Amino acid sequence: MHETYMRLALDNAKAARGQTRPNPMVGSVIVKDGRIVGIGAHLKPGEPHAEIHALRMAGEHAEGATIYVTLEPCSHHGRTGPCAEAIVRAGIRRVVIAALDPNPLVAGRGVQILKDAGIEVIQGVLEEEAERLNEVFNAYIVSKRPFVTIKSAVTLDGKIATRTASSKWITSGEAREDVHRLRHEHAAILVGVQTILHDDPQLTTRLPDGRNPLRVILDSRLRTPLDARVVTDGEAETWIFTGSAPDEDKQRQFEQAGVKVIPTEGERVNLEQVLDILGQHEISSLLVEGGGQVNASFVQQGLADKLVLYVAPKLVGGKDAPTFLEGLGAAVMDEAVSLTRLSVQQVGVDLKIEAYFPKADRS
Amino acid sequence: MHETYMRLALDNAKAARGQTRPNPMVGSVIVKDGRIVGIGAHLKPGEPHAEIHALRMAGEHAEGATIYVTLEPCSHHGRTGPCAEAIVRAGIRRVVIAALDPNPLVAGRGVQILKDAGIEVIQGVLEEEAERLNEVFNAYIVSKRPFVTIKSAVTLDGKIATRTASSKWITSGEAREDVHRLRHEHAAILVGVQTILHDDPQLTTRLPDGRNPLRVILDSRLRTPLDARVVTDGEAETWIFTGSAPDEDKQRQFEQAGVKVIPTEGERVNLEQVLDILGQHEISSLLVEGGGQVNASFVQQGLADKLVLYVAPKLVGGKDAPTFLEGLGAAVMDEAVSLTRLSVQQVGVDLKIEAYFPKADRS
Repeated sequence: MHETYMRLALDNAKAARGQTRPNPMVGSVIVKDGRIVGIGAHLKPGEPHAEIHALRMAGEHAEGATIYVTLEPCSHHGRTGPCAEAIVRAGIRRVVIAALDPNPLVAGRGVQILKDAGIEVIQGVLEEEAERLNEVFNAYIVSKRPFVTIKSAVTLDGKIATRTASSKWITSGEAREDVHRLRHEHAAILVGVQTILHDDPQLTTRLPDGRNPLRVILDSRLRTPLDARVVTDGEAETWIFTGSAPDEDKQRQFEQAGVKVIPTEGERVNLEQVLDILGQHEISSLLVEGGGQVNASFVQQGLADKLVLYVAPKLVGGKDAPTFLEGLGAAVMDEAVSLTRLSVQQVGVDLKIEAYFPKADRS
Repeated sequence: MHETYMRLALDNAKAARGQTRPNPMVGSVIVKDGRIVGIGAHLKPGEPHAEIHALRMAGEHAEGATIYVTLEPCSHHGRTGPCAEAIVRAGIRRVVIAALDPNPLVAGRGVQILKDAGIEVIQGVLEEEAERLNEVFNAYIVSKRPFVTIKSAVTLDGKIATRTASSKWITSGEAREDVHRLRHEHAAILVGVQTILHDDPQLTTRLPDGRNPLRVILDSRLRTPLDARVVTDGEAETWIFTGSAPDEDKQRQFEQAGVKVIPTEGERVNLEQVLDILGQHEISSLLVEGGGQVNASFVQQGLADKLVLYVAPKLVGGKDAPTFLEGLGAAVMDEAVSLTRLSVQQVGVDLKIEAYFPKADRS
């Protein structure tokens, strides 16, 4: 039964996707004598953790019960106090945990508090699923940089547009709606200035109750037009990252329009610095919707974590039609970047392929 | 129970994949009083059809029984006589058919013979699966040209090689073995002369008991080297299709080496004529393992039936790295070729994507 209850806890955790950041999604279930007596999920930063909600619902039934929690109860005195101590105080007899705290500096401390109080602890139930659920948080808490997902939509022959740069639309309505869900779930979205110049996109989340991500533009020479929609529409914040010496007049005009201009070191935009700065502002997830050149910069520098690819059952052809990954590229096949944990699902008539980049050494 | 028995018949039909051409794969099961009394499959051209094998196994039990057959029993006096009449003579009471004869000129005639004899006929059980099983035969019998499958192996970013033309290996051993199964199942394999010049491939089936397809080279100016492996290794027949005026000396040298040289009308090789000539020689299926240019020729001329794509979880990158479909390509996205019946499966660490081209009007 451990997996059944843990799955319910995971389902409740997932339900809060997009509303807990920069905190992780966590769910909890309390079971006493074969009956569920408490359910909880972390719903919003600053509000109680999942275990606290569940303990409150259980009330006196928590005494002698088993609590299921998708993430190791915290041991630190944060906004709502250490959950491990609340569990001890409530008289819980057994704690079943999916994943340990992702921060290696504190992982295991919550478990230790429980064990020291004589509570039975079972760890690792649906662990992989729980870790994947919080892949963004887990990476961010360690690296202090956003988890970077490259998203692209391609034809079966790997093109993101025709030779004349025509790209509307590659995928079906269902896939495009799925992209808006991705935007909703991400703290920031990034494109290069070429995309702004070519498409003048809004980069907003077109879903009922959708949250708009922070809009990030890579624009080394500040070529973004002052009348671009990301500058004028007021739908979401926009930050433009430039090279080291942006035009001061133009910078002032952007600031007056409410757009932040952030210089980075070097002639081109310094991507590592972009990620550091975003991380400092608690931006834990970044969706890169770049063209082939921007994507290649992230891949070549080992700065991408995940790839989400929508593949439409279409063929465009053309030696000169662009692909989603350009740049110089590998010289020989052995130098290709190998992705892991490939998975695929159908979304409408299209395929959605997800895969992970090899873990970069970020130390 | 109809589906259960028909599935067994389909399984037996499939088991003979690659050994029945130019005939279709057909399976049959005879059931009497809830017991299977006969099983049959078509195993080899010139040998009995599936129903005849099953009727022989059933013997006197066929009287009053139900026969399941994946394809409408034939009505013509071929090598083993009309199966529909054999079924009538055996005293069968009910015939369950998956798919009608794919030849519109004779479809329904077998059913008519059965009905005229007072036999109950049920049609359409697992019909789609049965039609897909014989997609090659069904197309060939109508068009008299081989069913054309374009096969390619690509990275996730759509490349078939790096910018330096390095391509060994894109996919895993499992996917490459699957390609050899494809070769085993095809009557002919086709590449362009560029592939011969660059890779000097054998184009054989490296599987235990694998059948080698006929090797077809598109080579408008007869540039295939006389010491290429497809010319010298004697592993399988090789035909070279050229433009209208091949060099006569070189042609003679190829003929002496046992390689057929077949001119076609025009400066470049005329693809439609290639398919007509292959069809005249009862080549019902053609596996195109071309590069981006050869593939584009088939696609642009509407001569491809199916696409089989192996996608490796790798990224190569590179603006100059080739894709599997080059040529000029579509001008705008609305002109992309839309494929249908997309399906995907994992083969080792790679994905195998299959899809069908829109039916070309071949009349």
